[in-house]
Amino acid sequence: MTTVGILGGGQLARMLALAGVPLGLRFLVLDPSADACAGQCAPLQVGAFDDQAALARFADQVDVVTFDFENVPAASAQWLAQRVPVFPGPRALAIAQDRLSEKSLFGELGIPVPAFQAVSTRAQLDAALARIGVPCIMKTRRFGYDGKGQFRIRSLADAEAAWDALGAQAGSVGLIVEGFVAFDRELSVVAARSRDGQFKAFPLTENWHVDGVLSASLAPARASQALRAQAIDYARRVAEATDYVGVFALELFCQGQTLLANEMAPRVHNSGHWTIEGAEISQFENHLRAVLGLPLGEPAMRGMACMLNWLGQMPDATAVLSQAGGHWHDYGKSARAGRKVGHATLRAEEATALSCALADVGAALSRPDQVQPVIARLNENGVGGD
Amino acid sequence: MTTVGILGGGQLARMLALAGVPLGLRFLVLDPSADACAGQCAPLQVGAFDDQAALARFADQVDVVTFDFENVPAASAQWLAQRVPVFPGPRALAIAQDRLSEKSLFGELGIPVPAFQAVSTRAQLDAALARIGVPCIMKTRRFGYDGKGQFRIRSLADAEAAWDALGAQAGSVGLIVEGFVAFDRELSVVAARSRDGQFKAFPLTENWHVDGVLSASLAPARASQALRAQAIDYARRVAEATDYVGVFALELFCQGQTLLANEMAPRVHNSGHWTIEGAEISQFENHLRAVLGLPLGEPAMRGMACMLNWLGQMPDATAVLSQAGGHWHDYGKSARAGRKVGHATLRAEEATALSCALADVGAALSRPDQVQPVIARLNENGVGGD
Repeated sequence: MTTVGILGGGQLARMLALAGVPLGLRFLVLDPSADACAGQCAPLQVGAFDDQAALARFADQVDVVTFDFENVPAASAQWLAQRVPVFPGPRALAIAQDRLSEKSLFGELGIPVPAFQAVSTRAQLDAALARIGVPCIMKTRRFGYDGKGQFRIRSLADAEAAWDALGAQAGSVGLIVEGFVAFDRELSVVAARSRDGQFKAFPLTENWHVDGVLSASLAPARASQALRAQAIDYARRVAEATDYVGVFALELFCQGQTLLANEMAPRVHNSGHWTIEGAEISQFENHLRAVLGLPLGEPAMRGMACMLNWLGQMPDATAVLSQAGGHWHDYGKSARAGRKVGHATLRAEEATALSCALADVGAALSRPDQVQPVIARLNENGVGGD
Repeated sequence: MTTVGILGGGQLARMLALAGVPLGLRFLVLDPSADACAGQCAPLQVGAFDDQAALARFADQVDVVTFDFENVPAASAQWLAQRVPVFPGPRALAIAQDRLSEKSLFGELGIPVPAFQAVSTRAQLDAALARIGVPCIMKTRRFGYDGKGQFRIRSLADAEAAWDALGAQAGSVGLIVEGFVAFDRELSVVAARSRDGQFKAFPLTENWHVDGVLSASLAPARASQALRAQAIDYARRVAEATDYVGVFALELFCQGQTLLANEMAPRVHNSGHWTIEGAEISQFENHLRAVLGLPLGEPAMRGMACMLNWLGQMPDATAVLSQAGGHWHDYGKSARAGRKVGHATLRAEEATALSCALADVGAALSRPDQVQPVIARLNENGVGGD
């Protein structure tokens, strides 16, 4: 009997547990909050990620440790890794936690990236702006997610406001300035790498964000064979260079036929939720298989899929459940503005059926803006051509 | 927030909970055993099914009640139904619990059944044998499952031994003699009926039993369009006549192009486990949707699927996990001779690929006898023709 410890008890841990129970796995979730939603289907230990006594109790009860939350303190991951196998390993986690390290790595691996420069002082910000130009974005190097810890600098006149907003964090989490990419599309590769180096990528996915938070994902992305192969090759390079074990996401900007790496997420990823129903195996099961040293499952798609995120509060389920390929995911969380509380996946054999299902759901839930860009992409001619 | 109460905490309750958590449901499982395997992913109340104080505590905490185990005392189901909605309803449950009632109903609905006769005394057994002839089978009317509570009567000389084996139960659970059917194949329909009468059937499934216990299922069954339609029509008649709500299975014998009803199981069914990966929606989710009054999901298949049951102890998972369409289900139970401890589902787009996967798994696990009849069926020509 194998017990998997998960640091963080949100929806990712919840979906990992749901995928792992059929494999005969037991789980223990560590989370600071007693109402962490993974606790509804897995045993929950309430404790802080930097509480060594809590970590020791946790380590005593589990056979392997993984993450629902990548911003677990690196020191905690290292401490655990001396006692129990931790996947992904602390080194891969440390790289992915730091925008400067990951961008530097991408560059070393020959993966194009937007211009970037680390910034520690107000003077360095001016130097970075002079080199990179405007518009650009200043971000915290660590602990940012879903658009948090970012300031868009549209002109040199914004520099002072940017420093007021984030400058105080220059000494703690660090700052980075990144050139703004006028991308056509945002894409992601969700892939798994096993303990023995086996690598399997799910089909390339296109993503739409609103205010920095994922709103919709479409798989497979309508992209040329060359672009798809390029994206997956970049993901493979990153996985091999970091000796990564588990599932991760590589987020990419697409300008014409050029891909630029934005960031990697060292965990199962929101843009891979469609795999639960849309692929032969889900990202959650493949993450567990990778972490446990089991053979990876086949990421082949079944038709096409679109995922819609629900933020703040759950809409009525009826419209989605009434679709032939409609699947509902309520994370069991209380409502709160901007919080990821659930998602839906619509699956269909081909683009027209998926487009109709999206139009139905968008109309029924009065969310035309959420579905419209996906429908527009599905209706484009020639984008998906090989 | 809706809490679903499940009477019985075995693998069916476990798979119901796994299917229901994504719908935002909470669960409470009532089982006499503290290590009931559904307790690994859902809250478990330990208590007897006929303990009224336990039933009262259970009823207070749930919004709707359903079953993992159809042999819950009818009085308990009725008692609960006065306090909270219970699906399937006590009347449907009572019919399905009694082989005499269900066979009588099948007859009333114009569904062919093997010859049958209730038996209360030794003299009635002789009369039944004279009317029905040998070979035949004497069974307990209630509480039989997986071949338990049955005695095969091959010749009149076996009558005494049959009475010795089961006669003591004539006054308690009752006995029935059924004519032996020299069937070509065993089939089942797994279907759902909703609170408002919507009916959806999964594709017809062929089943192989060993010693009365399901060994393998193949879906879709290779059968003519007429036979498939007939089987599903019989299931619909039974569902409507019993005002059934939820998922059930109708087990059928097939002799040439004739179908005879064997029994109905008023719950999700072992021969529908393949739906987890093989259909757009699983039998478990459709049962919950039916019970909760939500729209039923689409039972359309994805390719073909074969389920293999694991009895006694789990085999090594590697051979199944190495198949492109291999899916593993370990129920988290301790090993015990004859116990259903897990299953695997192999999915493929067409018969040749499924046949190869079965051959691989059968060889790797030294279980040629379990996979051979399924492979033989897949290799037959013309059986699946419309």
